[in-house]
Amino acid sequence: MARVAPALAATRTAVRAELADLGPGDLVLVACSGGADSLALAAATAHESRRVGRSVRSRGYAVRAGAVVVDHGLQAGSDDVAAQAAARCRDLGLDPVVVRRVEVDAGAAVGLEAAAREARYAALDAVADATGAAAVLLGHTLDDQAESVLLGLARGSGARSLAGMPRRRGRYRRPFLGLRRAQTEAACTALGIGWWTDPTNLVPDAGPSAGGTVPAAPLRSRVRAAVVPVLEDVLGPGTVEALARTADLLRDDADLLDRLAADLLGRARTVAGDEVVLDVATLADAPAALRRRALRAAALEAGCPPAATTVRHVDALDALVVSWSGQGPVHLPGDARARRACGRLFLAPARAGRDRVPPASATTQE
Amino acid sequence: MARVAPALAATRTAVRAELADLGPGDLVLVACSGGADSLALAAATAHESRRVGRSVRSRGYAVRAGAVVVDHGLQAGSDDVAAQAAARCRDLGLDPVVVRRVEVDAGAAVGLEAAAREARYAALDAVADATGAAAVLLGHTLDDQAESVLLGLARGSGARSLAGMPRRRGRYRRPFLGLRRAQTEAACTALGIGWWTDPTNLVPDAGPSAGGTVPAAPLRSRVRAAVVPVLEDVLGPGTVEALARTADLLRDDADLLDRLAADLLGRARTVAGDEVVLDVATLADAPAALRRRALRAAALEAGCPPAATTVRHVDALDALVVSWSGQGPVHLPGDARARRACGRLFLAPARAGRDRVPPASATTQE
Repeated sequence: MARVAPALAATRTAVRAELADLGPGDLVLVACSGGADSLALAAATAHESRRVGRSVRSRGYAVRAGAVVVDHGLQAGSDDVAAQAAARCRDLGLDPVVVRRVEVDAGAAVGLEAAAREARYAALDAVADATGAAAVLLGHTLDDQAESVLLGLARGSGARSLAGMPRRRGRYRRPFLGLRRAQTEAACTALGIGWWTDPTNLVPDAGPSAGGTVPAAPLRSRVRAAVVPVLEDVLGPGTVEALARTADLLRDDADLLDRLAADLLGRARTVAGDEVVLDVATLADAPAALRRRALRAAALEAGCPPAATTVRHVDALDALVVSWSGQGPVHLPGDARARRACGRLFLAPARAGRDRVPPASATTQE
Repeated sequence: MARVAPALAATRTAVRAELADLGPGDLVLVACSGGADSLALAAATAHESRRVGRSVRSRGYAVRAGAVVVDHGLQAGSDDVAAQAAARCRDLGLDPVVVRRVEVDAGAAVGLEAAAREARYAALDAVADATGAAAVLLGHTLDDQAESVLLGLARGSGARSLAGMPRRRGRYRRPFLGLRRAQTEAACTALGIGWWTDPTNLVPDAGPSAGGTVPAAPLRSRVRAAVVPVLEDVLGPGTVEALARTADLLRDDADLLDRLAADLLGRARTVAGDEVVLDVATLADAPAALRRRALRAAALEAGCPPAATTVRHVDALDALVVSWSGQGPVHLPGDARARRACGRLFLAPARAGRDRVPPASATTQE
């Protein structure tokens, strides 16, 4: 038996661990873009699906392995790329292999990258529902995770924005979060599988302000091409791993703090209805890390869009609690607003319920 | 009255807030290196010390303002730099102005930068004690804070390592954490004060492996010169502020999580003595974010040096709790070790107490 290339073996070991809890005959789908990471994932999944649970004592059992290829339609020839990715998945023995063309709203307020992601997951969910898949595997690597942390740093909004991607969430699993992107390329090379390279990933200098005919590279691609190499050069070769480890640790922190903040919000909420009404004293007694999270959660309950609700809005809400000097209402995204009166915070959704808040003259007397 | 330059006004406003709780005649010391940040701090402190608590209704009162200049003796001519810094502080009216020469252990296991920091704070503490100072002001800026976050990323050891520097700790205060370094330079320029520039901060390419006669720049200087500009270029001009905000938020998180982990450690500790003995079931029930912090704190209690106790050691301790398969003892820094037996973890300091841990044959039967 030929010796298996180390990178190929690593991809298989990683996938094996993520299939171990599936039952005989369960369907697992690989989300495949045609890039090296997701083709290596497709190959490893095809290989491992035939022998789940194999050990010294057991021959194991087979699960069914299929693939979904999402064509975002954002570049000329994207249908060809999708068709080629699908053909390779079929060559690997995956079945079913489904290609889904999606419409991405290029003018979406959340930005093109977020709109593409949303459309992609909607398509993956639809195929998983239609085929009854038990799990969907995603090809994100250690490098993707490190890039996510750096993108979160730019937002400056705390642990959750640095927490990267979880290994599992719902039906989604990411077997390659512990592997470098280069390992997935080496695995494809070892198997003789060619992969598609997104041209926008190769244009480090094409920022939003760059002229010319080359489309602007997504921010993630510019982080990949221009930031990560400099960080590794200055901080050392283990930097990508350190960034991914940071994400893991901060995800644990954020999960716990979100739970504790939800408890705090439950204790502070004094009146139900279309307004969110909070007891100021309960919030003021809480540690800042929980108080600020509870205030953000309350703003989202009052209808503020999550992406638009920034650390600055939370600062303003927090000032109503801990730096009260009779200031006026805080205007929040989604036309919500918050004001303090009579020892309570009133977070009012757009329009609704505003009349119930005492007038400003009363609030300043507290 | 001449209009005050905006940067100069910003340095004064920042210092004013940090002096407000001092009483008449209290002594505040400025730690001054002769760089733009600490000279701007010395100037603003000299100015504001004469009118603490001044308002529309009150003329305020004076506090005494002095300075400490630490000569690390690490570069030729460092005594001249110190003498010049002291002369400028005296010109500004600060009194007393104390120069302290320290011996930095260049061969220290913790590294030259950490050894220099240790010697510096020991000198500052000694002068503060000798003069009865109520507060010591440090010139760290928003840029220093951002650099600290990036240095923490390279360690990959979680929220605390990304939490940067607090605004206050004990007698130390950092009025300029909200100001950019460029503002401190502009303030000095407005006052006609020249400042000293550390030559190692201007050598971005001289990494540890660089040859030649130029001394290797400290890691922080390389982050400043090579990483921050690239991050600002790719992620946007607000990146330094976002990094500093990240530090503030993660410091709040880390403070709370450390407190909760100390509670957990208190509940899990079952036997006192020269060993730290922990109940496995109590730890296993706790969220990972607290369990891992409690395990690290237990290791430090058992004598492990903090700087040497890494995330990998915590991983190994955590595996004894949550991935127990009869594995052998975990070797920890400082010649401590940990093993699991009879539902407990035993963390034994170097030598002491090891005989009380059941032999390996017993531990694997659990």
